Amino acid sequence: MQQVVAVVGGTGAEGSGLALRFAKAGLRVLIGSRKLDRAQAVATEIAAQAGAGEVTGHTNPDAVSKAAIVILTVPLSAQVETLKSIRTNFVSGAILVDATVPLEIAIGGRVSRTVSLWDGSAAQQAARLAPQGVPVVSTFHLLGAEALKNLAQPVDCDALICGDNPDAKAAVSALAQTIPGVRAIDAGSLENARFLESAAALLIALNLRHKVNHSGLRITGLGEVHR
Amino acid sequence: MQQVVAVVGGTGAEGSGLALRFAKAGLRVLIGSRKLDRAQAVATEIAAQAGAGEVTGHTNPDAVSKAAIVILTVPLSAQVETLKSIRTNFVSGAILVDATVPLEIAIGGRVSRTVSLWDGSAAQQAARLAPQGVPVVSTFHLLGAEALKNLAQPVDCDALICGDNPDAKAAVSALAQTIPGVRAIDAGSLENARFLESAAALLIALNLRHKVNHSGLRITGLGEVHR
Repeated sequence: MQQVVAVVGGTGAEGSGLALRFAKAGLRVLIGSRKLDRAQAVATEIAAQAGAGEVTGHTNPDAVSKAAIVILTVPLSAQVETLKSIRTNFVSGAILVDATVPLEIAIGGRVSRTVSLWDGSAAQQAARLAPQGVPVVSTFHLLGAEALKNLAQPVDCDALICGDNPDAKAAVSALAQTIPGVRAIDAGSLENARFLESAAALLIALNLRHKVNHSGLRITGLGEVHR
Repeated sequence: MQQVVAVVGGTGAEGSGLALRFAKAGLRVLIGSRKLDRAQAVATEIAAQAGAGEVTGHTNPDAVSKAAIVILTVPLSAQVETLKSIRTNFVSGAILVDATVPLEIAIGGRVSRTVSLWDGSAAQQAARLAPQGVPVVSTFHLLGAEALKNLAQPVDCDALICGDNPDAKAAVSALAQTIPGVRAIDAGSLENARFLESAAALLIALNLRHKVNHSGLRITGLGEVHR
């Protein structure tokens, strides 16, 4: 069966970049947004660009209600509210992927600084708000929107994967590796998500300082990593 | 003139690895330790292995009093005390490089977890304790001790460099790049050191999970970076 992926906040730069890559890989992708018409318009654009897969626009709760993997790609300032709006819509066996970066801009600060969250990380905050039984996996922060959108190039970046449920991590690793160039690397339990969120903010800081828009990160020295 | 580098805590794994590489590059390296005889023994070993440079053992204050660049490579639990023990010994124009990783093991916890410091990072803590006029640069955390010690191989890792003094960052970048394989990358102001310290802890977590001892990190997508 074709894998169904919902991208909540899928009209944003990061969400639409991921959606484009997953569509290109032939997946069924549901673009979720607070506004249905906006979701549909972005879905039409992505479908045309990808020329593969199947992309449709939905409200966030509707997208979640049809997906095996739900990817949350909203700004930190919208994370809690969005999670509350979709928490009753997960299907049995669904996985929640959190890609939120706790940037200071959420409180009016800088995009290159982070805030500390009570739960330790945005992903752990998502896990606290997720419905019982829905495993949370933290990843995709490091894959920059501009790199994702450039279909002519593979994405020169590893996807570090954190979570407490091995099956969910395996499913999300396989999903990550549908993107050309991306290597999925197990980075341990969900509490390590703070390292990924910090590394994502570091890449943003490097983009600003070096005037580029798609810095990425490769881990070296791991030997044979499943790809 | 030959550059003189002091490694405070130079008998530890990270410090002696850096010292070995700098000696190999032909530099004058002062191994600092609380115990003079230990510093001298390690200096003799490093000198033999490197077969280049000039390596001698000193007490920490004595090493600092003779160096243009002072690298602090002690565990977090020793950072404050060590800085206090050397703060009157810096020569005019000297640079302090902090490579401290704020690991939870400092308070009896795990080596793969970090603690949050009041100053925001170990490097900012070092800056608060450093003598006035001594610029602090944060780097070298990512270069693993095992990779540094294996002279047969280049170090497959970038050295991210944070600091508030451009001249000091340039000097330390040049020092970093005396190590084969290492690319120095400007990672912004000293407050960004928390990203580097977090990334170092991530590499430790990856080493443990993947049963390797020298994972590293490369930044991609920066285009032409001076090497």
